[in-house]
Amino acid sequence: MKQLKLYHYWRSSSSWRVRWALEYKGIAYDSIPVNLLQNEQRSAPYTQKSPMQNVPMLEIDGKALTESLAIMEWIEETYPKPALLPTDAMTRATVRELCQIIASDIQPIQNLKVMQYYSADPKDRERWAKHWISQGLKAVEARLNQTAGTFSVGGELTMADLCLIPQVYNALRFNVDMNQFPLCRRIYDHCLKLPHCDKAAPHNRPGAQP
Amino acid sequence: MKQLKLYHYWRSSSSWRVRWALEYKGIAYDSIPVNLLQNEQRSAPYTQKSPMQNVPMLEIDGKALTESLAIMEWIEETYPKPALLPTDAMTRATVRELCQIIASDIQPIQNLKVMQYYSADPKDRERWAKHWISQGLKAVEARLNQTAGTFSVGGELTMADLCLIPQVYNALRFNVDMNQFPLCRRIYDHCLKLPHCDKAAPHNRPGAQP
Repeated sequence: MKQLKLYHYWRSSSSWRVRWALEYKGIAYDSIPVNLLQNEQRSAPYTQKSPMQNVPMLEIDGKALTESLAIMEWIEETYPKPALLPTDAMTRATVRELCQIIASDIQPIQNLKVMQYYSADPKDRERWAKHWISQGLKAVEARLNQTAGTFSVGGELTMADLCLIPQVYNALRFNVDMNQFPLCRRIYDHCLKLPHCDKAAPHNRPGAQP
Repeated sequence: MKQLKLYHYWRSSSSWRVRWALEYKGIAYDSIPVNLLQNEQRSAPYTQKSPMQNVPMLEIDGKALTESLAIMEWIEETYPKPALLPTDAMTRATVRELCQIIASDIQPIQNLKVMQYYSADPKDRERWAKHWISQGLKAVEARLNQTAGTFSVGGELTMADLCLIPQVYNALRFNVDMNQFPLCRRIYDHCLKLPHCDKAAPHNRPGAQP
């Protein structure tokens, strides 16, 4: 049995993706909080393991792995059931496409360090985050119009939902009007009622603030 | 046999990743240039297929797939030989981690539309791009110190190289001092001599400018 240690931050949307995957598959792990606001991710020992100074980081039998999508793919290959990717190659590709739109084209541009470098003014930062989240979710909504069932791609939970729901949470935090994106909103509301999603959600993590 | 149409831009680093994967595996495809400087990616018919208005986009028997990493995973699953992912799960994870550092934490922040929104001043834009590329390649170099052989991860070409080389090309474009990152530089110089890399490279594409 593998020893898993997850380094993560309660509010980080990328951390939520991985917590949710672990909860969904019923995989036991040690939870190690990293306080981004206190710059714990920039310490020398942490940087040795996570050179981008990012959360989440999963230590697997002592070996560090970063980047939430790489971690989710490793989890899927190592603990295949219940599956987070469909079996058909084209449908798998559609799931990964939605994951990448969120994990490459939305979240990194609105994350804390980019906003900090962009401006010291909280109003500027909110405008920046809203712009990129709105533009990104517009694309996600268009794709969901072609793919969604109960979940983002058809009737089963996939990695796409594990990326979408934390991103919608960020959108609400930055006052994005989610009425523009009814499919995103519906899938968000549906998933939040699932116990494995809820348990991994920011408001249920130690250290969470209202 | 599948009908593949690749929509791409000669200078786009994400397009290079996919062109290279197709060349390496010897997969035939139709090449359709999309001129980003003339905003062809924002046309209504293109947006219908690529809601993020991004290149590359691969049309597979008429079905559109965007996001270069999702496309590369589809290519790998559909045309497994020669492989671009190792067989061992932890080594596959390391390859995907490097891909994601580049495709999520570096390239999207320094891409054209983010720089355009950030500032109208070319000097500001160059400073912005240099900052994020330098910070990101510092992390990549640290990981390569643990993983590199002839290539980014061991002695075989992987998806990690398909992401790294186009990113180093961007770094050189923005005058990043590559002496800081000797492993990135060595792997770049090595890969550029490979015919499948060279054929996919920007300088060999129709429409390329010096």
